[in-house]
Amino acid sequence: MDLWFNEYHTKNSYFSIKVKKPVISVESEFQRIDVFDSYDFGRVLVLDGYLMLTEKDEFIYHEMITHVPMAVNPQIRDVLVIGAGDGGVVRELVKYDSIERIDMVEIDKLVVDVCREYLPQTSCKLDDPRVNLYFEDGLKFVERKNNEYDLIIVDSTDPFGPGESLFTEDFYRNCYRALKASGIMVNQHESPYYPDDALAVQNTHRRIKSVFPLALVYQAHIPTYPSGHFLFGFASKGLDPIADLSDGWDSLGIKTRYYNTDLHRGCFALPNYVKELLENA
Amino acid sequence: MDLWFNEYHTKNSYFSIKVKKPVISVESEFQRIDVFDSYDFGRVLVLDGYLMLTEKDEFIYHEMITHVPMAVNPQIRDVLVIGAGDGGVVRELVKYDSIERIDMVEIDKLVVDVCREYLPQTSCKLDDPRVNLYFEDGLKFVERKNNEYDLIIVDSTDPFGPGESLFTEDFYRNCYRALKASGIMVNQHESPYYPDDALAVQNTHRRIKSVFPLALVYQAHIPTYPSGHFLFGFASKGLDPIADLSDGWDSLGIKTRYYNTDLHRGCFALPNYVKELLENA
Repeated sequence: MDLWFNEYHTKNSYFSIKVKKPVISVESEFQRIDVFDSYDFGRVLVLDGYLMLTEKDEFIYHEMITHVPMAVNPQIRDVLVIGAGDGGVVRELVKYDSIERIDMVEIDKLVVDVCREYLPQTSCKLDDPRVNLYFEDGLKFVERKNNEYDLIIVDSTDPFGPGESLFTEDFYRNCYRALKASGIMVNQHESPYYPDDALAVQNTHRRIKSVFPLALVYQAHIPTYPSGHFLFGFASKGLDPIADLSDGWDSLGIKTRYYNTDLHRGCFALPNYVKELLENA
Repeated sequence: MDLWFNEYHTKNSYFSIKVKKPVISVESEFQRIDVFDSYDFGRVLVLDGYLMLTEKDEFIYHEMITHVPMAVNPQIRDVLVIGAGDGGVVRELVKYDSIERIDMVEIDKLVVDVCREYLPQTSCKLDDPRVNLYFEDGLKFVERKNNEYDLIIVDSTDPFGPGESLFTEDFYRNCYRALKASGIMVNQHESPYYPDDALAVQNTHRRIKSVFPLALVYQAHIPTYPSGHFLFGFASKGLDPIADLSDGWDSLGIKTRYYNTDLHRGCFALPNYVKELLENA
């Protein structure tokens, strides 16, 4: 069978991946969940038609959303992860012996169930004893928290559908309150290239900046995301991702395939057109 | 008419752009040349079926292949450009008053003719009085040169077809000889992501390293190239792209939409998997 998965980047452009074998296709209360095997990208997870991860390059996203904040504050003990149902963020976090607690809040239990069964590459560490799984709305969960976490990682879907509330000023304000004095919040920040995505970048940045005293953006090359140019937000109550970069990270001996501390410094250097986008947010 | 241009990234994946209007399609002695108008990327140039540039993001490629070496040595007077038939590299070079001569060697005159007529955005400065156009084989041209240029920019097509000879050790050796003592050679270095491209990266790097005492690689986000993660080679007889970065570049007042000197430092910080690829070249 000649079966292709198409992801539209705009109305008039798309990326197409040949499907070797559909693995599972289910509908949860929140969204449609598809997993398929491809020839070039390994297994692929798709939510509501949007490519979430491929086994070939998920390491880039998960390393960059995790190790950048972790390298800035080696004192991180309590971490809140919002979304991240595939388990990739948790897999990276448990590499740190210093972390004592990982609360993970995913609205859609079925995503976790599907990933546990069909995506062991990312879900393999969800049973780490430090991990507490909560299946509920991230917005409501964080509303109840106060001065409790050193780090919040927001690994959401796009700013529409089930992930929409995780891009609101209310949510960012709650995150701020849930963080301790040295707290950091990192979130997926979309791509600056296509006009609709660029607008989402601006909206997100504007809202985070209105809540956190320090709000920066860093970038990574993620080939299977639209344009391959992907941004992350680094917001904090004071810690600076470059000036406060710990020089002890290398001695931890954590193995990474994308992240390193030189790249850490480099990834905050944005192209002019992205800087202007953010300045005009 | 529902017309789409597909560029295969692998046998089993491709990027597709809806064509608004085919503009020209001709066959030269060397290759097939197509230009079409798209909805989201402006005008698009395609050689032998491979996307060469789109009006939307060609600035990234052309700025990064030009300003990185220019910012390292403000004494650059004599420049050799090989390939670059669309004129984009020349457009960036003529922004420097300090440049006295630009020899541009393009094997296929028809590419230049087509771009002059249909891609003024890139070809607009080919008539600058400092520019000398030569329509001949770049390999042969550079063979005759000795200690003549401060900078050689190799803006070739891929390492097969008409551009093949521009990826050989012979060619790099000739470039080395054609350069003055402070000479720099920059070249397009393909993408590290897909296996075939990664192999080309390794072959190219190995050959350049065997000729030049300093051979580094830097990266840029070019969304319409396969994977969006694109590499350039920076080779020199001694100048280091970071240590020797001139602090006078900003005062030149050159307008760029991608390049800046912070990004210059950042773009040499490569992901681990790319570093390993190069170390094993």
